[in-house]
Amino acid sequence: MTSKFYAIISGAGSGTGRAVALRFAKSYPIVLLSRSQSSYQPIVDDIRAAGGQALGFAADASDPAAVDAAFTSVAKEWPDRRLAAAIYNANAGFANKPFLELTEADLDTSLGTAAKGLFYFAQKTMPLLLSTVNADPPNPPTLLVTGATASLRGSVRFATFAAGKFAQRAITQSLAREFGPQGVHVALAIIDGGIDTPWGRELGLVEVTKDSKLKPEAIAESYWHLHTQHRSAFTQELDLRPFSEKF
Amino acid sequence: MTSKFYAIISGAGSGTGRAVALRFAKSYPIVLLSRSQSSYQPIVDDIRAAGGQALGFAADASDPAAVDAAFTSVAKEWPDRRLAAAIYNANAGFANKPFLELTEADLDTSLGTAAKGLFYFAQKTMPLLLSTVNADPPNPPTLLVTGATASLRGSVRFATFAAGKFAQRAITQSLAREFGPQGVHVALAIIDGGIDTPWGRELGLVEVTKDSKLKPEAIAESYWHLHTQHRSAFTQELDLRPFSEKF
Amino acid sequence: MTSKFYAIISGAGSGTGRAVALRFAKSYPIVLLSRSQSSYQPIVDDIRAAGGQALGFAADASDPAAVDAAFTSVAKEWPDRRLAAAIYNANAGFANKPFLELTEADLDTSLGTAAKGLFYFAQKTMPLLLSTVNADPPNPPTLLVTGATASLRGSVRFATFAAGKFAQRAITQSLAREFGPQGVHVALAIIDGGIDTPWGRELGLVEVTKDSKLKPEAIAESYWHLHTQHRSAFTQELDLRPFSEKF
Amino acid sequence: MTSKFYAIISGAGSGTGRAVALRFAKSYPIVLLSRSQSSYQPIVDDIRAAGGQALGFAADASDPAAVDAAFTSVAKEWPDRRLAAAIYNANAGFANKPFLELTEADLDTSLGTAAKGLFYFAQKTMPLLLSTVNADPPNPPTLLVTGATASLRGSVRFATFAAGKFAQRAITQSLAREFGPQGVHVALAIIDGGIDTPWGRELGLVEVTKDSKLKPEAIAESYWHLHTQHRSAFTQELDLRPFSEKF
Repeated sequence: MTSKFYAIISGAGSGTGRAVALRFAKSYPIVLLSRSQSSYQPIVDDIRAAGGQALGFAADASDPAAVDAAFTSVAKEWPDRRLAAAIYNANAGFANKPFLELTEADLDTSLGTAAKGLFYFAQKTMPLLLSTVNADPPNPPTLLVTGATASLRGSVRFATFAAGKFAQRAITQSLAREFGPQGVHVALAIIDGGIDTPWGRELGLVEVTKDSKLKPEAIAESYWHLHTQHRSAFTQELDLRPFSEKF
Repeated sequence: MTSKFYAIISGAGSGTGRAVALRFAKSYPIVLLSRSQSSYQPIVDDIRAAGGQALGFAADASDPAAVDAAFTSVAKEWPDRRLAAAIYNANAGFANKPFLELTEADLDTSLGTAAKGLFYFAQKTMPLLLSTVNADPPNPPTLLVTGATASLRGSVRFATFAAGKFAQRAITQSLAREFGPQGVHVALAIIDGGIDTPWGRELGLVEVTKDSKLKPEAIAESYWHLHTQHRSAFTQELDLRPFSEKF
Repeated sequence: MTSKFYAIISGAGSGTGRAVALRFAKSYPIVLLSRSQSSYQPIVDDIRAAGGQALGFAADASDPAAVDAAFTSVAKEWPDRRLAAAIYNANAGFANKPFLELTEADLDTSLGTAAKGLFYFAQKTMPLLLSTVNADPPNPPTLLVTGATASLRGSVRFATFAAGKFAQRAITQSLAREFGPQGVHVALAIIDGGIDTPWGRELGLVEVTKDSKLKPEAIAESYWHLHTQHRSAFTQELDLRPFSEKF
Repeated sequence: MTSKFYAIISGAGSGTGRAVALRFAKSYPIVLLSRSQSSYQPIVDDIRAAGGQALGFAADASDPAAVDAAFTSVAKEWPDRRLAAAIYNANAGFANKPFLELTEADLDTSLGTAAKGLFYFAQKTMPLLLSTVNADPPNPPTLLVTGATASLRGSVRFATFAAGKFAQRAITQSLAREFGPQGVHVALAIIDGGIDTPWGRELGLVEVTKDSKLKPEAIAESYWHLHTQHRSAFTQELDLRPFSEKF
């Protein structure tokens, strides 16, 4: 545990965000941004129970003022710590309707969370990550983004969701190309399959075959690997899918 | 000239939109949607001078109410004509700034025109195009969208512009996959290079080599080809770039 | 009909190659290379019956000596004509077996026709096409290649077929990037679906829906469009698929 | 160290292959296939010096008989060990010439090593990997392949090299789609940049900036990560490039 640095995760609930937080908490104090306290508090508690440090803030990723306030609070709480890793995992707007039933609100929700939320988050975190580059960090400062199948292809019933995820990928690529040469690692993980989450299981979305849904802990291991890659061999995009998935 | 059908072009100024309008005007009455009358009027005049029919409306593509009003007017003016082709050529938001200087307004402009504008336009035109499928049209009803290099890759200084163009591509693909099987041809033309426009020449953006900028008339020929493709052999995406372009 | 130029099609049988030959024969004398005389002779006869000119040669595309001999014969027959368009449509090696049942011969067949055959063909035709650039041709000299779904993705039972089509695409892209700036248009048409051929119909591969298989004549129109594109707006790759195709 | 399993690396010299061998040797006995003993012997010695186990065989990856003989020898030496990981790292055929100077031999070399060599290797290793699936391996049985920038794009002077690497990618994707659902992880690592090798340094290919060439050890860490991914979250393709690389 190095207390000179910390990691921040936006979009932390019961699935990927939680697992990534717990994985990174083995090495860093953690800041969690979630829509509500009920989302982040159990993770904060788990991290603290395991001997780690964690702060949680209620901040919808698509609300710049809330995001702003959270970053101000972090700076007050941990004035001497530098940002080692920023993970953007906020998701919303999976409308899943025929195109002519989709509404402008569906599109706004998807663009707001996937694209605009990442835009705010990157504007807040990139200056912090850049300032970490020369502060002898244990790993290259990293911005990781959670993508989806819909980051790569539009399809029936997915017009608005794909719009957001495509836009998010565009921003991620642009950031990688601008800030990679300045020493910040920016990567997109394209999750191509259903994730094995508590709420999914409650909804009865059970696995057809064992391990046919992505384990959040397995996703988290790949995020940690991305973060620890040497700067001579950065990955910009990787896909993650269950062995059983058709693709 | 068949007067039972018409084509509509959103985003018609002095470059691609104008050339596409003139090309399609050889076969159809044309509706032009532009930000201002000064954009569409010269095209309307040229089409009429050549013996064609044209209507123009001032309607910013990212303003749903204005778009709505224009479609209402078209339905009143030409109640018996069916929509044969809809071309979405509106462009905006090429901010071209380092990421940390880009503003939320830059992102909104790009998403608003490239993605949300296409979303409105498709919601207005798709029902009309679907109703044309069984009305014995001369060619399969078609929705064409103008993309750019930034539809395919994010890059330095292009984060917001690419976000809009990626999102636009996602919507276009989703439309193609949903409405192709219903008989509507949806395609994206990815313009990969500078276009030889009057305003470009005025700005001094001259060609380094002859034909090293895309001629709007050449682009228009490919749009017309896409429109006239037999439904057994639809193209979903094609690139267009000058012979001299590195890619 | 201009008799100063000609077009050559490698891989001309009863489907795409035949349709492309007939389409280009409206404007150019045609040379056909096929595995056997029984493949090219009916096309030669049809072109001549329609008032065009045609020569046919038996030359397996993967046999350099046979290809060489055919080009020597063309140069003797038509010493003063320049090559306007070269179309590589040879296909072979669709083994369609589980990977562990595929043989080295299956791989050799696919690589031999899709990749090595194109390599020979391009080495023969590119110098001719380059010499046409400044000979005032009616359209930019063009090399067109017929790709397939397997040009873009490997899949179960398609390992060897995809290997050949991927390699073919690599060569096509490399040619486009090297010779585009010298004025030769190189493009790949990715045929994504079954083609409506006489032999397919004989095998009982009938259309589920009307136009659910690509019409060779429709493919040929897009090839002709590619050939006639202005050099300021070349397409490098386009897909062609039936309206009804899932993709 | 588990002695029930082993890993095999084809194409082991002084760069990536060596580093991958040393990394995997921390967990498995290692088999090395190289063009000559002078390539594999130093690695064998280093692994043994570090307390590991290693066997080396001279076998050109594009020579089926030699590859066959090596696998027979391995089966005799280690009859009770199962294959945990197979890495295909053989490279050849980077001709780097203008297209019209490339020879059929250049193309054969590239296709022979990148595509046909992988084909043989996969036909030898896949049955072994499949038999490991239910033998309680420490990680999912894995086939890893070393790709390059030219796996994704053809370019000037790279026609033959790209042909081989594209074909290799096609085979890798086909294998992933066929054998993933059977529990074998197949992945392609796309190395997009120069590698910092001893022979490169001897040739004076020094780094412009520190870490502007990929460190073989950094590549090896990502290979190890791919091998240890849980089967619910397999990566099929990842890119690896220096932070300083334009892409």
